[in-house]
Amino acid sequence: MSVRTPDPYPGWLSNEDLHEARQRLPMLYVEAVPVRLDSLGYVTEIGLLLQASDEGEMVRTFVSGRVMYRETVRAALLRHLEKDLGPLAFPQLPASPVPFTVAEYFPSPSETGLTDDRQHAVALAYVIPVTGECNPRQDALELSWMTPEDALSHAVQSEFIGGRGNLLRQALAHAGWCR
Amino acid sequence: MSVRTPDPYPGWLSNEDLHEARQRLPMLYVEAVPVRLDSLGYVTEIGLLLQASDEGEMVRTFVSGRVMYRETVRAALLRHLEKDLGPLAFPQLPASPVPFTVAEYFPSPSETGLTDDRQHAVALAYVIPVTGECNPRQDALELSWMTPEDALSHAVQSEFIGGRGNLLRQALAHAGWCR
Amino acid sequence: MSVRTPDPYPGWLSNEDLHEARQRLPMLYVEAVPVRLDSLGYVTEIGLLLQASDEGEMVRTFVSGRVMYRETVRAALLRHLEKDLGPLAFPQLPASPVPFTVAEYFPSPSETGLTDDRQHAVALAYVIPVTGECNPRQDALELSWMTPEDALSHAVQSEFIGGRGNLLRQALAHAGWCR
Amino acid sequence: MSVRTPDPYPGWLSNEDLHEARQRLPMLYVEAVPVRLDSLGYVTEIGLLLQASDEGEMVRTFVSGRVMYRETVRAALLRHLEKDLGPLAFPQLPASPVPFTVAEYFPSPSETGLTDDRQHAVALAYVIPVTGECNPRQDALELSWMTPEDALSHAVQSEFIGGRGNLLRQALAHAGWCR
Repeated sequence: MSVRTPDPYPGWLSNEDLHEARQRLPMLYVEAVPVRLDSLGYVTEIGLLLQASDEGEMVRTFVSGRVMYRETVRAALLRHLEKDLGPLAFPQLPASPVPFTVAEYFPSPSETGLTDDRQHAVALAYVIPVTGECNPRQDALELSWMTPEDALSHAVQSEFIGGRGNLLRQALAHAGWCR
Repeated sequence: MSVRTPDPYPGWLSNEDLHEARQRLPMLYVEAVPVRLDSLGYVTEIGLLLQASDEGEMVRTFVSGRVMYRETVRAALLRHLEKDLGPLAFPQLPASPVPFTVAEYFPSPSETGLTDDRQHAVALAYVIPVTGECNPRQDALELSWMTPEDALSHAVQSEFIGGRGNLLRQALAHAGWCR
Repeated sequence: MSVRTPDPYPGWLSNEDLHEARQRLPMLYVEAVPVRLDSLGYVTEIGLLLQASDEGEMVRTFVSGRVMYRETVRAALLRHLEKDLGPLAFPQLPASPVPFTVAEYFPSPSETGLTDDRQHAVALAYVIPVTGECNPRQDALELSWMTPEDALSHAVQSEFIGGRGNLLRQALAHAGWCR
Repeated sequence: MSVRTPDPYPGWLSNEDLHEARQRLPMLYVEAVPVRLDSLGYVTEIGLLLQASDEGEMVRTFVSGRVMYRETVRAALLRHLEKDLGPLAFPQLPASPVPFTVAEYFPSPSETGLTDDRQHAVALAYVIPVTGECNPRQDALELSWMTPEDALSHAVQSEFIGGRGNLLRQALAHAGWCR
C-alpha cells in the first residue's frame, strides 16, 4: 500500500480499494424517501424506485448512495436525489440535518433487521418533499408514485428487500401517518 | 359568568366549567408509552394499561392526562406516570421536551385518525423508560408488559380504541423498532 | 353559565370567556420561525416580525397564534402563517408534526425562562421554510429578513421579550447552525 | 493491496490502512454529551472530559469514538461511554436511535464550522443521562461536572477546539435549555 504511483484523485477510492474498505469499515450512506405533500404537509404520495437487484430480481428501493470523502451529508443527499430523480425534481432539503432514523444494514442478520450483502452500511434516512417532475435515471426502470396505503400494502411490501419495507413504515410513522 | 362569588381555587376549573371548556378549546394532554429497555437502549417490553371505557368495555390505554394551569409539561408527565404506575416505577423523563409525535384527538373523524368522544385533545406523546416496579392505580385493572411483537399483534391492536393502536406503532417506529 | 341563550358559534369562545379560560387552562399555540433555505437546506435568512407590544414598545416576534377548537395543528400553523406573512408567502409545512421544541410560557418566572403576561401558553414551535413573497399583516409594522449571525446579535436579541430570543437560538441549533 | 497474506482479523484495519482510509472515506463516529438530570428531566450538570490534544494543549471534549465494522451504533456508543466514563457510570442509552444532531468534521474549514485535522468524521451526537459514578480513563486527565451556565461560559467555551463548543450549545438547545 505504501509503494504506489501518485494518486491523481487522492480523495477517492479505486474500485478495488472500495471493495476492501467495505470488508473493514462501516460505509456512510444517505437514504431518501421522496414524498408529495399537500399544502398542510400531509403526505399524499410516496415515490418508490423499481430496480433490478444483483440477482436480476425487480425490487423497490429508495434514493440512496454513499457520502464521499470531504462531501457534506446535505451535498450527498442532493447529489443522489438529482441522480435518481433527475434535474427537475426540485427536492426540498430540510432545515435540520437530523434524520428520521439511522438505518444500519449488516452483511448478516442482526438486531436491526436490515441487511446488505455487500457491506456494513449506516444510512442517515430522510423524508424529502419533491415538488417538480421526476425522471428516474437509466438503471432504474421506473419511479412509481403511490399513496401511503398502497405503499404499505402486502403486495408492495413484498417487493422490498433487506428490511427496507420497515424503513418505509418508520418514515410514514415519523410523518404522523397514523392508520 | 361575570357575577360570581370569589373563586377559592382560581387556577382550576369546576367540573361544569371544564365540561364547557371541552366544547370550546383544545385540551392539552401528555401521553406516555412506558417501556423497558436493555442496556443498549433496545425496547424489550411495553407497558399497557387495561381499563374500563365509559361504555364498560375493557380497553388498552397508555399513561395519559391533562396538563393543568401553571403546570409544566414535564411536571404533568411525572404526575400522571406516578398516578398510573405507582410511586416506585422510577420513570426516566427525557432530557429533551420534544415528543415523538403530537397526537390530535377529535370528537369526530378527521385527517388524524384519532378520536375522543369527550373533547378535542392534543397530546404530546413520549416513550418513557421505566426501571422500577409498577403498581397501577385502582381504576386500572391491570398493567401488562409485553414484547413489541405481541403489542403489535392483531389481538392486542383490537383492544385499543380511538386510533391509539397506531400511536403505539409510531412509538415503536420512533424507537427504531423495525420488523 | 348554565342559563344562557343558545350559542350561535358553539365552538368558539366569547372574549369574556376566553379571558376567563386564560386564567384556568393552558392555551395551545403554534409558533413558526420563517426561514429562507439555500438548495442544500442551509438557513440563509430568518424572518422576524416587528410589532408593538401592549406597552407600545417595539418588539421582535415570530409567527404565532392559538389553535382553535376542532382545528388541526397543521391548519392552525398554515392559518397563522398566511395571516402574518400574506397569501403569497408559500410556506412549506413539514411532513412531520414533531416540533423542534415545546415552548412553555407562564405568567410568572419559571424553569422554562419563557413568560407571557396574559396566560399560560404552550406553543408547538416549528422552523418553516418560505419560498414566496411575504407581506406582513397590518398590525405588524415590518417583516425583516436577516442572516443567522445578525438575528443572534446583541442588538436584535435585545428586541425580543418573554425569552423568545432563546427560542430563536433553539431554532437555529435545531437547523444545525453551528457558529 | 491484492497480494497479501491472509488477514487474521479481516474485520479490522491495520494502523497503516486506517491512516489511508482516513484520507479516502468519511469515518463514522458516535459522540456523547454525558448529563445529570433531575427527576423532571431538566439537565442539572454536564460532564466534560479534559484531555491533552496532539499538540499538548489541554482541551475539553465529549465522549467520542469510531463505530467499528459490524458494530451497531448503540454498541459503539456504550463501548465508548464505558471506556471514557468507567464501568460504573450507568449511562442510559435512549430508546430512539435518532441523534440530536449529525456533526460533520472536515480536515479544512467548511459550512459546518467543525474541523478535525486527521480526517473527515461524521458523528452521530447524543445527550446521554448518566446515573452512576464516573471514573475517566487514564488518558483523560479529568472529568468535570458543571452547570449548563458554566459550560456555556466564555472560559469553558475557549477550551473546546474544532467547533465542539457549538455542539454543546446544540445539545443544550435540544434539551430545551433556554437561557
